[in-house]
Amino acid sequence: MSEKIISETKMGEHIINESWMDQSQQWIPKLHEQTVYPEQIVRSMSDSHAFQGWRMETIGPASVLPKQTLCKGDEITLDFSQHLVGYVTLSLLNVRSNADAPLRLKLTFGEMPCEVSEDFSTYEGWLSRSWLQDEVLNVDVLPGTVTLNRRYAFRYLKIEVLDTSIRYDIQIKDIYCRAVTSASMDAVPPLPENIDEELAQLDLVSIRTLRDCMQTVFEDGPKRDRRLWIGDLRLQALVNYETFGCNDLVKRCLYLFAGSRLEGGQVGACLYEKPEPYVDDIYLYDYALFFITTLWDYYEATKDRETLEVLWPVAREQIDIALKRLDARGVVQDDETWYCFLDWHEQLNKQAGAQAILIYGMKRGQWIARELGLSAQEEQIQMQVQQAERATLHYLWDEEQGFFISGEERQVSWASQVWMILAEVVDKDAAWALLQRLMNHKEAIPMNTPYMMHHYVESLLQCGKKEEALAQIRAYWGGMVKDGADTFWELYNPDDKTYSPYGSNLINSYCHAWSCTPSYFIRRIFASTAC
Amino acid sequence: MSEKIISETKMGEHIINESWMDQSQQWIPKLHEQTVYPEQIVRSMSDSHAFQGWRMETIGPASVLPKQTLCKGDEITLDFSQHLVGYVTLSLLNVRSNADAPLRLKLTFGEMPCEVSEDFSTYEGWLSRSWLQDEVLNVDVLPGTVTLNRRYAFRYLKIEVLDTSIRYDIQIKDIYCRAVTSASMDAVPPLPENIDEELAQLDLVSIRTLRDCMQTVFEDGPKRDRRLWIGDLRLQALVNYETFGCNDLVKRCLYLFAGSRLEGGQVGACLYEKPEPYVDDIYLYDYALFFITTLWDYYEATKDRETLEVLWPVAREQIDIALKRLDARGVVQDDETWYCFLDWHEQLNKQAGAQAILIYGMKRGQWIARELGLSAQEEQIQMQVQQAERATLHYLWDEEQGFFISGEERQVSWASQVWMILAEVVDKDAAWALLQRLMNHKEAIPMNTPYMMHHYVESLLQCGKKEEALAQIRAYWGGMVKDGADTFWELYNPDDKTYSPYGSNLINSYCHAWSCTPSYFIRRIFASTAC
Repeated sequence: MSEKIISETKMGEHIINESWMDQSQQWIPKLHEQTVYPEQIVRSMSDSHAFQGWRMETIGPASVLPKQTLCKGDEITLDFSQHLVGYVTLSLLNVRSNADAPLRLKLTFGEMPCEVSEDFSTYEGWLSRSWLQDEVLNVDVLPGTVTLNRRYAFRYLKIEVLDTSIRYDIQIKDIYCRAVTSASMDAVPPLPENIDEELAQLDLVSIRTLRDCMQTVFEDGPKRDRRLWIGDLRLQALVNYETFGCNDLVKRCLYLFAGSRLEGGQVGACLYEKPEPYVDDIYLYDYALFFITTLWDYYEATKDRETLEVLWPVAREQIDIALKRLDARGVVQDDETWYCFLDWHEQLNKQAGAQAILIYGMKRGQWIARELGLSAQEEQIQMQVQQAERATLHYLWDEEQGFFISGEERQVSWASQVWMILAEVVDKDAAWALLQRLMNHKEAIPMNTPYMMHHYVESLLQCGKKEEALAQIRAYWGGMVKDGADTFWELYNPDDKTYSPYGSNLINSYCHAWSCTPSYFIRRIFASTAC
Repeated sequence: MSEKIISETKMGEHIINESWMDQSQQWIPKLHEQTVYPEQIVRSMSDSHAFQGWRMETIGPASVLPKQTLCKGDEITLDFSQHLVGYVTLSLLNVRSNADAPLRLKLTFGEMPCEVSEDFSTYEGWLSRSWLQDEVLNVDVLPGTVTLNRRYAFRYLKIEVLDTSIRYDIQIKDIYCRAVTSASMDAVPPLPENIDEELAQLDLVSIRTLRDCMQTVFEDGPKRDRRLWIGDLRLQALVNYETFGCNDLVKRCLYLFAGSRLEGGQVGACLYEKPEPYVDDIYLYDYALFFITTLWDYYEATKDRETLEVLWPVAREQIDIALKRLDARGVVQDDETWYCFLDWHEQLNKQAGAQAILIYGMKRGQWIARELGLSAQEEQIQMQVQQAERATLHYLWDEEQGFFISGEERQVSWASQVWMILAEVVDKDAAWALLQRLMNHKEAIPMNTPYMMHHYVESLLQCGKKEEALAQIRAYWGGMVKDGADTFWELYNPDDKTYSPYGSNLINSYCHAWSCTPSYFIRRIFASTAC
């Protein structure tokens, strides 16, 4: 289909569509700003019963801060009482005498207590330590007001006074965060009255999560990676349609993914926004197919037919690219590399999940072709879907076990079953029976992320099991709230609360887009029905 | 005389003359900017024969830097080949792959090799460690260009790559310093031809020292304290008249000292320029008297009679204040506090030096009164001078030893003898005999700073000993140049090259105003005579 995409150029191996990149810039949203002050002075306490071993104890209201004198060696932790993304300003006053030497502070920003409690020098994860948010700040002029250049994602701010001089101490006369987001809380429709308090709370935390990830693109997490990932975008967009309605931001992101593609036209897994938007080298089988899904969802929400028409060739191209990975049997070729995401789990085999997402994506491609009246394409995709489904049932369904299996090792995982259900490879009743068997299969590779949990909830709804879906939301996302979440987390394993695929929970993102979907379920599915 | 100073207000115990403070702002000079690039990549080598134990070895030209890949854990030291004061910009490029995490660099700026060679965490001096110039720089966007906010004083810049990510390394595509000064090298008159190469070199280093200290005030040192001290100002002004001729900057500083005084009208020892100019709490007996001297020198250089008239009441006030410290005998009351500077030496007793500077200052006050036709005042000061001289010869001259003595302990020091000579308490011949005796007095408290050395050279000239004065300049300041000085240092003890009054040579200032006077001597005294 690439002949329909006009005026693209190759940059190295990448394909750049200047026109789409240019267009995407006109939909850069204006950021809303809000000044937020700390509410409490807190102290972090080691507590084996607390989430990740840290409990925050309130020392007093932050209103006493301006009168508090801090000397060399002192530290203080401020609690802004909510997760924020923004720019921090401090007004500093020298006391006792003149500031005859620079002031040297260490600032540590934490989304969670662990970040302001544990020593970053102990960090041994494999993601860069540079994601941990701390700064050494040298201030030459006192009294003075300093605004830090960088944006931070945080609720807690620990301030350590590294150096003053023998002549002076300091007071923090004012400190605030200029919080930024492209989402407007005013735009969110009120929840229907049938929603109970617990769900209202989950909805609020979801909305705040999405709010803090919505900047000039949909970021995956404002602390880390601060980047546009298509897996996150897809879910953020779904929640956005029900809440903030910033639909041009979804359009902007779709144009960015379409306008900056990898070798052969692949939609990349993620994009960097600065210094100029460009696609990362990472291609993920499932993520590229989600371009189709996200485009379809966008059309459903907006009826923006022009975008659907313009971007359809890129969506269709993803199907063609994905089909090339099928082996002679019509099954996705498995391998050891990181070719497909699905979920964070070291043992998880991706083959069956990839196959399911191929079918899932092609079905939505078929719907787009039908909507655009492209009947030849529609028929072709339908045929491709049928072939893929037949191969799936023939090669990836283990009749004896009653599970979809994946890879050489014939692995049974939650991810494989859930995605086969979402791809509608089995009918509703068979799907529910499958899930029930799965719940009793103790060796099945479990789920590890809110992202995968979202799809599990979707699969329950697919089976018509609204109550079970709701119970799962209450249990899982409700568990995070009980564990202290102001915004929902990138990772949450109730059985291993320090779980991190990166080797340290310090580096986990605690405001993560793919975790914000309770609002979608609550508002779209449950709002109209008594729960 | 304070009745002549109109419209002053008390701020706490300080006296503010708003009109003078306002006027001083109109003489804020424009800063000249020059872009300077590093010349060499160097490596610091431990070497017991090198100054302070460190030798810089050239690895290669800095022109290869843009092609050099730096990985996590790498470090590189750049040599800008001259002392600079300014703002540093780095253009950074990620290589190997995209910068999927922030870059974390540590930058350490050094005036001298020791600063980029020794670990600042070992610093144990009593001045704040915050004067040591290092920064942890987190860079979110690569490729990117970053300009650091703070001004640094340095020749060497060590860059340590603390963190990249597993995907990328970096290259420094460009790095430069936007050097700033209010002095223009173009304004400096050429040296007469009779000046030899060694003196020409001392002149150049002096001029560069003064250049880097000349910002929007005459700073003592651009690394530390970055402040206007009157002891430094007095000597800087003398060199400035012979070189840059930025006379309005001297006027600005005089108005600042006059416009912001301490309790009872004392001229403070130093001023802070920001956030708004204000006087520090420190009163030093000698420094306050140097207000008179500096005003007289300014008038001699500029013939600006208006400033002389306007500021004379403040100068006169300093005499009155200083005289109040005399005891019934007419001698400065000694005590243990830091009431007078003279020189950095723990054992140095200040009484005799203070007495000498009182006389020295009063004599210049007398000249001003004469110049302004204030004969009553002139006569009064003359009487005060005579009384002080009589008391000095009676109580502070030890006829048996043939030295001026100071304090209860009847201490003999170089500082006391030198200042008595400069105050002309003894005549030329007696002065020279005194100095000769002093050279053979092994127990006399020695000199420790270029500031004191300047006065010693002045005292030799006072004795008519031009050759000896010149030999001293060649030996002392020439010694610094042989030891690697690009700009002259705050402290230099040829017998103890790591000497620091602050507990660590790391914190010493290596571009220090009070050390820049060889140019004054060379241009004013020696230029016209064969040396």
